[in-house]
Amino acid sequence: VTTDPVWVNGTLLDADEAVVSALDHGLTLGDGLFETIRVQSSSPVFWRRHLDRLRDGLRHLGLRPPLSDVQLRAAVDETIEASGRADARVRLTVTSGSGPMGPARGEAAGTVVVAIGDLAPPPTSLRVCTVRWVRNERSALAGVKSTSYGEGVLVLEHARRTGADEAVLADTTGRLSEAVTANVFLSVDGALVTPGRAAGCLPGIVRGVLLDGGAAVERDLPLAALLRADEIFLTSATRGVVPVSHVDGHPVPSVDGPLTRSARTTFVHAVADAVASS
Amino acid sequence: VTTDPVWVNGTLLDADEAVVSALDHGLTLGDGLFETIRVQSSSPVFWRRHLDRLRDGLRHLGLRPPLSDVQLRAAVDETIEASGRADARVRLTVTSGSGPMGPARGEAAGTVVVAIGDLAPPPTSLRVCTVRWVRNERSALAGVKSTSYGEGVLVLEHARRTGADEAVLADTTGRLSEAVTANVFLSVDGALVTPGRAAGCLPGIVRGVLLDGGAAVERDLPLAALLRADEIFLTSATRGVVPVSHVDGHPVPSVDGPLTRSARTTFVHAVADAVASS
Repeated sequence: VTTDPVWVNGTLLDADEAVVSALDHGLTLGDGLFETIRVQSSSPVFWRRHLDRLRDGLRHLGLRPPLSDVQLRAAVDETIEASGRADARVRLTVTSGSGPMGPARGEAAGTVVVAIGDLAPPPTSLRVCTVRWVRNERSALAGVKSTSYGEGVLVLEHARRTGADEAVLADTTGRLSEAVTANVFLSVDGALVTPGRAAGCLPGIVRGVLLDGGAAVERDLPLAALLRADEIFLTSATRGVVPVSHVDGHPVPSVDGPLTRSARTTFVHAVADAVASS
Repeated sequence: VTTDPVWVNGTLLDADEAVVSALDHGLTLGDGLFETIRVQSSSPVFWRRHLDRLRDGLRHLGLRPPLSDVQLRAAVDETIEASGRADARVRLTVTSGSGPMGPARGEAAGTVVVAIGDLAPPPTSLRVCTVRWVRNERSALAGVKSTSYGEGVLVLEHARRTGADEAVLADTTGRLSEAVTANVFLSVDGALVTPGRAAGCLPGIVRGVLLDGGAAVERDLPLAALLRADEIFLTSATRGVVPVSHVDGHPVPSVDGPLTRSARTTFVHAVADAVASS
């Protein structure tokens, strides 16, 4: 049980007093979005990227932004300050708010929740499994960081039951897509590649940093490319760049190899730049 | 804004006081299930079918039931009684409860919410559209009535913007699957058919009543079968059997034709039997 404060619709509260309506469509229908943000030196790292993705998501969902950019940033800053944490992760959740029973939306303003917690040190490496379930690249929510995350919860539970730390999914056509909580990068003929958005993956923050910096390129790949890669790593805002050691129990030839280390250096520098300029 | 009571984890509350934790994984991750139950003569119709489906869902999600069958029924009955309603619909929501930040579940007991509202008279007929998005029959949540319902919200919004009342989806292979909030039945060579579970549709309550009574059979169909059918209707617990009048603007030849009327009679009798025996 956390003792960190939780910001709900304008008010900082103790965790056990932080509540939302039981009729919130975020609860009843998963009608919402989220961002999980790395905090270093009390600064939300890559804030602009997170904000842009959240705005894109709101537009995709057809929701009015419940707060201005400045208000949203203030909510995050207040939560960080009240927690007294320098390094942390922030979970920002935005839902469509309370509404009538049934899938149609109401007139209520959206709900905004900001929670904060530990930024655990990243694991040295991760074991991944592949699964029979697939990402739906033709979903109405493809590429959207939706709170309708029940699939992810189940797939991760399955991965952990089978001795893996994460699961990698193909899209419905068999293309490599992403891991549940991370994007996937791998070496193909000496180059660093990652699946394109057409395979239904989320536009991850670290993925964006690496692609924008020219460190990697997008490419259509079959799921089986994982079994032929010399190096594989996963990326996420909170963990950064983490090597994959095993795929379905098979060892990856080069764990934390040159492409992985180089990508991590790019990530670490980008974080440092972001903190310095904030 | 409703004045109906809302039951939350053992307590009946006014709607504006009915709250759940802002850290509930039902809110942050869509990790939950729901049932929408028809109430007639103050009795939750087809209760056993709803309860069985909920139990199947909990097992699928790997969640412990937060309440016994008797407690769950008592919560529904209390809510109906406190509302003073005879005819209504009840929304039962069960989530995995509060947990740590991130997709792993916590140790908390689940959250149970029971809300009640109007049972609107069913529409005379519905216009449906087909959509480019597809149901993922290979999802970890295929066939589960999950609160991760964000896709459905978006697809319905799209349908309504285009002048339709509902949308019908194919699965990823092009097979007819279901509507967002209802199962679909249609005439094929004079027989009444509905897609099988393999096409990713939900095991609807009215669908179950019609199949168990031998009124219809399951069959694999292409989405385009909708354009060749003489009769089409949708089924859901709250609306019963409702004819489809148009598919993508094309009129359906026989609206509320003999197969539809016969299915409605079966449904109405099954409801009457359920109420009489409760």
